[in-house]
Amino acid sequence: MSKSRIIANRWIYTGKLLKLELLQVRGPDGRAREREVVRHPGAVAIVPLLEEGDQRKVILVRQYRAPLDRELLEIPAGTLEPGESPLECAKRELAEETGYHARRWEKLAEFYTTPGFCDERLHLYLARGLEPLGGNRPDEGEFLRVEEIPLERLEEMLSSGELEDAKTLIGLALLARLLKL
Amino acid sequence: MSKSRIIANRWIYTGKLLKLELLQVRGPDGRAREREVVRHPGAVAIVPLLEEGDQRKVILVRQYRAPLDRELLEIPAGTLEPGESPLECAKRELAEETGYHARRWEKLAEFYTTPGFCDERLHLYLARGLEPLGGNRPDEGEFLRVEEIPLERLEEMLSSGELEDAKTLIGLALLARLLKL
Repeated sequence: MSKSRIIANRWIYTGKLLKLELLQVRGPDGRAREREVVRHPGAVAIVPLLEEGDQRKVILVRQYRAPLDRELLEIPAGTLEPGESPLECAKRELAEETGYHARRWEKLAEFYTTPGFCDERLHLYLARGLEPLGGNRPDEGEFLRVEEIPLERLEEMLSSGELEDAKTLIGLALLARLLKL
Repeated sequence: MSKSRIIANRWIYTGKLLKLELLQVRGPDGRAREREVVRHPGAVAIVPLLEEGDQRKVILVRQYRAPLDRELLEIPAGTLEPGESPLECAKRELAEETGYHARRWEKLAEFYTTPGFCDERLHLYLARGLEPLGGNRPDEGEFLRVEEIPLERLEEMLSSGELEDAKTLIGLALLARLLKL
């Protein structure tokens, strides 16, 4: 079986965050097919684990999501800025969204969010050794509410359907595996 | 804190699979901001669990993904057709992509793949009691390779980074929890 390959492309839209590209792909059968592709700069997400003696919590954020026109409960996350490394971006987003700084960072996973139509790659971190940052949170424009969830609730959250965001499901499922919950 | 709301919209593009919409959202601070939003019909994904005596395997598919211009290993999945229910879609995609039919279906999760910029909702199923369909597979245009992975490899796959697709990570992590692997 010979391979698929891109034989032509055309840009439809270039926005502030997204670009839309039309690809012509020649398949193994020799036939060309059109593919609508969203180009995305890439993103990070963070599982912030708060450990206060016996009490362990994950920090989530509840925020308005325009595509759904409602709020969603998610792990902190954000889009890569030009020239920014994934880890720098994760540190910035954790501070901006939760007001915490982390002493220890671990990579949990790296994946494509929707490889069927978009090239977004997401870098997922575990942040431990959390310490509150002093002063106001830098990004007051985010309008989100921080929620601290005790780890005892994780099992229920992973099976009840209340987590409706893909990266949050991945982050919390991998955390539960890591901590053998 | 008052709520965010959509105050205007404009369609940028209407394609075969995707639509692109520009929203004006008024935030709790009264300021309007632009949001680029991809509209998607929704999708399904299936964790097909093959149980042959003591041997248990999950069935994955390796296929070319145009946005990445390379192949990716994923659980079977597909986009909802107009008027099609998620379960009907899951049955069709399982048959088309793997050549199997399942006697038992369980919902594992339902989530937004990328709620920051797209409204795609994905319905994730566990398919058990698999039986091979006779004859040729209906969808010969998919050009994918079926791979049967023994469950003993799941632990390693979830931590090694070889799974690069979000829905596949969610499906296999939830399967591991369910089977207490």
